[in-house]
Amino acid sequence: MNTYPSILLENAVNQFASLPSVGRKSALRLVLHLLKQKPEEVEAFAGALTQLRNEVRYCRVCHNISDSDVCPICSSINRDRQTICVVENVQDVMQIETTGQYNGLYHVLGGIISPMDGVGPKDLEIESLVRRIAPEGINEVILALPTTMEGDTTNFYIYRHLAGEHPDLKITQIARGVAVGGELEYTDEITLGRSILNRIEFTP
Amino acid sequence: MNTYPSILLENAVNQFASLPSVGRKSALRLVLHLLKQKPEEVEAFAGALTQLRNEVRYCRVCHNISDSDVCPICSSINRDRQTICVVENVQDVMQIETTGQYNGLYHVLGGIISPMDGVGPKDLEIESLVRRIAPEGINEVILALPTTMEGDTTNFYIYRHLAGEHPDLKITQIARGVAVGGELEYTDEITLGRSILNRIEFTP
Repeated sequence: MNTYPSILLENAVNQFASLPSVGRKSALRLVLHLLKQKPEEVEAFAGALTQLRNEVRYCRVCHNISDSDVCPICSSINRDRQTICVVENVQDVMQIETTGQYNGLYHVLGGIISPMDGVGPKDLEIESLVRRIAPEGINEVILALPTTMEGDTTNFYIYRHLAGEHPDLKITQIARGVAVGGELEYTDEITLGRSILNRIEFTP
Repeated sequence: MNTYPSILLENAVNQFASLPSVGRKSALRLVLHLLKQKPEEVEAFAGALTQLRNEVRYCRVCHNISDSDVCPICSSINRDRQTICVVENVQDVMQIETTGQYNGLYHVLGGIISPMDGVGPKDLEIESLVRRIAPEGINEVILALPTTMEGDTTNFYIYRHLAGEHPDLKITQIARGVAVGGELEYTDEITLGRSILNRIEFTP
């Protein structure tokens, strides 16, 4: 599909096709869908994107996206204010919140250390994490970064910084193992190995 | 993922999730991708959509999307101007053009007859098709609509109108059969049946 009947159409398709995992055929389908909507609806679509981009704010404490200077989680009095869960990005906060199993605070790094992509510790919110510990009286930091080489590097970097400056701080990481409902037969050997090494007491 | 940390974020996600076959998780991923782009890039994205919607034009002859009053295909002197291929929508024109096997004109109906969706013949560019035949000296109309009940209904409706008013007009439909490279074993029985009924002379 190289020949678009209109430059305006081609421009719009190019924009959609620049998004991650949207191919040119899907992009065309999405654009033609928008073309069938009322002009004011397309205006609302475009407006929501530019407004978000121009007015987006980040919580100055945890760096999550927020409509206010300090996000609702950081300003809540109902949360455990002595625990911080360190995550890579905004999606991870939302995902953990949906579990309903965590009631502490968060710290969004905004990425992980990745020399290949030119992302170093200074590009991430690591210093601001270390600075939170003493004033906020944090006693546990949970590392919830991906189990990739980059994630492990970032974990290690944060651990060294935190443990160096705060020897009494408890530093944990989320459990890795066979998924709930997952079958051993279909679990990769590294995950299965970890789930054996990190076994916990059976509680009947 | 019900709890968005920001209303602006939620609005943008809702807009993307309103597109066909974009779920809320994908929508969030796309929005967070845009959030990482420069504001002027997001502006360009939004601008391309609103500009297309507000300034889109349709060829007054074939009703394909066009930047001009008459589209390049309809105004080309290098095309077979006595044949019209009738298609459902703009994508179909682009798809047929990529084959390089067709050099005639098009007529975009803008949909197919579908009482379930409240689409009747009057909502489609059928009258304008019938009106093209005599003035343009068309001698063949190729029906290239989908092989669904709606497609068949639309084919039949168009056939009756065209044949009634222009008894000498050749009316054809595109061949249906086993795909090139397709195996009989995996071809559905209706397609396979058609490919036998509509067999053609073997040309060695």
